[in-house]
Amino acid sequence: MKITQIHTEHYRIPLPVVLSDSTHGDISHFGLIVTRIGTSGGLEGMGYTYCVGDIGGSAILALIRDDLAPCLIGEDADRIERLWDRMWWHVHFVGRGGAASFALAALDIGLWDLRGKAREEPWWRLFGGHDPRVPVYAGGIDLQFSLDALLKQADDFQSQGFRAIKMKVGRDQLSEDVERVAAMRSHLGADFPLMADANMRWRVDEAIRAARGMAEYNLFWLEEPIIPDDVAGHARIAREGGLPIATGENFHTVYEFQQMIAHGAISFPEPDVATLGGVTPWLKVAHLAEACNLPITTHGVHDLQVHLLAAIPNSSYLEAHGFGLDRFIRNQLHIEEGAAIAPDRAGHGIEFDWDALQEHRA
Amino acid sequence: MKITQIHTEHYRIPLPVVLSDSTHGDISHFGLIVTRIGTSGGLEGMGYTYCVGDIGGSAILALIRDDLAPCLIGEDADRIERLWDRMWWHVHFVGRGGAASFALAALDIGLWDLRGKAREEPWWRLFGGHDPRVPVYAGGIDLQFSLDALLKQADDFQSQGFRAIKMKVGRDQLSEDVERVAAMRSHLGADFPLMADANMRWRVDEAIRAARGMAEYNLFWLEEPIIPDDVAGHARIAREGGLPIATGENFHTVYEFQQMIAHGAISFPEPDVATLGGVTPWLKVAHLAEACNLPITTHGVHDLQVHLLAAIPNSSYLEAHGFGLDRFIRNQLHIEEGAAIAPDRAGHGIEFDWDALQEHRA
Repeated sequence: MKITQIHTEHYRIPLPVVLSDSTHGDISHFGLIVTRIGTSGGLEGMGYTYCVGDIGGSAILALIRDDLAPCLIGEDADRIERLWDRMWWHVHFVGRGGAASFALAALDIGLWDLRGKAREEPWWRLFGGHDPRVPVYAGGIDLQFSLDALLKQADDFQSQGFRAIKMKVGRDQLSEDVERVAAMRSHLGADFPLMADANMRWRVDEAIRAARGMAEYNLFWLEEPIIPDDVAGHARIAREGGLPIATGENFHTVYEFQQMIAHGAISFPEPDVATLGGVTPWLKVAHLAEACNLPITTHGVHDLQVHLLAAIPNSSYLEAHGFGLDRFIRNQLHIEEGAAIAPDRAGHGIEFDWDALQEHRA
Repeated sequence: MKITQIHTEHYRIPLPVVLSDSTHGDISHFGLIVTRIGTSGGLEGMGYTYCVGDIGGSAILALIRDDLAPCLIGEDADRIERLWDRMWWHVHFVGRGGAASFALAALDIGLWDLRGKAREEPWWRLFGGHDPRVPVYAGGIDLQFSLDALLKQADDFQSQGFRAIKMKVGRDQLSEDVERVAAMRSHLGADFPLMADANMRWRVDEAIRAARGMAEYNLFWLEEPIIPDDVAGHARIAREGGLPIATGENFHTVYEFQQMIAHGAISFPEPDVATLGGVTPWLKVAHLAEACNLPITTHGVHDLQVHLLAAIPNSSYLEAHGFGLDRFIRNQLHIEEGAAIAPDRAGHGIEFDWDALQEHRA
């Protein structure tokens, strides 16, 4: 199965409501970069990545079109490890993560979609087939919500079938965060899985103080307390703060996860297949975590990652958060009683509504 | 001094001779991305970055034009720390190194050039003014040279005023590397500073074996023995191989240097101001190294970095390697008796030959 052509499109998708968190400010839209990989046999694989606010969108498109796609044309589509390695090294001088990992992901996901279609197997079976039912949580982007709106959102999430919720923390005063977490815990009951996400808002000392301040409310994890670059800082927070730490949405290489895990700095590695370089490195992070007795959670692109968590034995919660992409996907993520169900369509099984996307071309 | 406009151009520069090393294969040209920052006072700052083979060049251009330059328009050009921070966070989701650091560098260098011009001071004085004479070495891209050509090149370097030389290693057999290093040592004399650069060719075990095999030839440092991602591997090579280790041309954040230094993994941090995000992070790496009792060497863009090494007290050798850019720069690096002399022109003092560049617009 030779790769004969690659089409790449860049869309700028408005969000239905403006989102805000402690780091990214107001987010009104996001970038979507889609690749379609054609082959000699006629099969087509589709991959995509995204970026917040569409910042970096044109650069990702340029990397795919000018640098990476030419590495693949004429090659055997089945030799994905070889192609991934070739792409990684081709852009290595400007790569090792960053925008290059987004571009790599859009192509790698397309290659694995091809593989699934060729074998007529859904991703979750192709990659291991552990359990199609994956526990799922609703990720609220709710830092600026009033307390009433926060609790109302929690009720809505539960009526949609969610049995776990993540809320934002990182308000100007720690006492506000503590008050909101306490209110959510009281509202949800003692054992309801409740996560909190600080989006890198704090310094190490602030994060330790915050973790201790929220410890009595039984948080399932505390996510991204500080910048992702500070490995030793994460280890201190984990040790001194008393809460399990999740991080990884800002890691773009397997090596960054390895560092964090080797230093005992995180409890929940949280890769994002669309920004880590694709399925190829995602599975390596998952297997590395398993070898280190750690579960895996995910960030974003739930339609893709429900398959990945369903494939492996060490899966924790899937984040349900599609950055408003749901409106453009024909088959919605199916959620029942706290679980997302990996679909049985071949490959990742995602079909975009191309007509609806068309008006958002960048 | 308000920033009123930013012009960005992308050039594709052919190399006078095709270069080759153990990682990048044959390199026939490189990308050059130049920014010109105009201000309300009429002063203009100029910055630039580059990329091997022009891979990633269009992505760097896109990041500057679509994402970073808009962060600067209308801002106070003197508040560089604030602007750098704003740019870093603006592209953070697709950033934390990679192509974003190249784009940031082109703008940061332009901002510091403005500062130097406004104060009518050359960079080397502006940043500390330690000593305008900087020891310099000639970096040979000579992995495929015959032994005769290698020794001839060494003679040529010495007649050009160099008193230190770096050669490539990483041939298919270790015995070839050892033979070439031995021949160079014998040719140059016992104490002539001779460095060797493996361009990430080896695994950790191979690097330790190579370091031990070359130890008797008194190498000044062994550069990039393995991939830059493996911090623990560098520490092992430093400990077990018996040679001082240099690395850093593939690091694009201060944090990567911090990690490597904190683990006792390198003797010669080697930042590249054009790929690390500019002068702002470069000086932080230099001061971090000083605090850790380490010298700083550099990679590439010698016309810029001669100033930086001249500014600080903990400078080691400057690499003389302009990736063929010399032909397009009006004022050549001045070398005498093994030292490069930081020029006294305001800012970085580099003027491109814009007419000559024109025909290489990408």
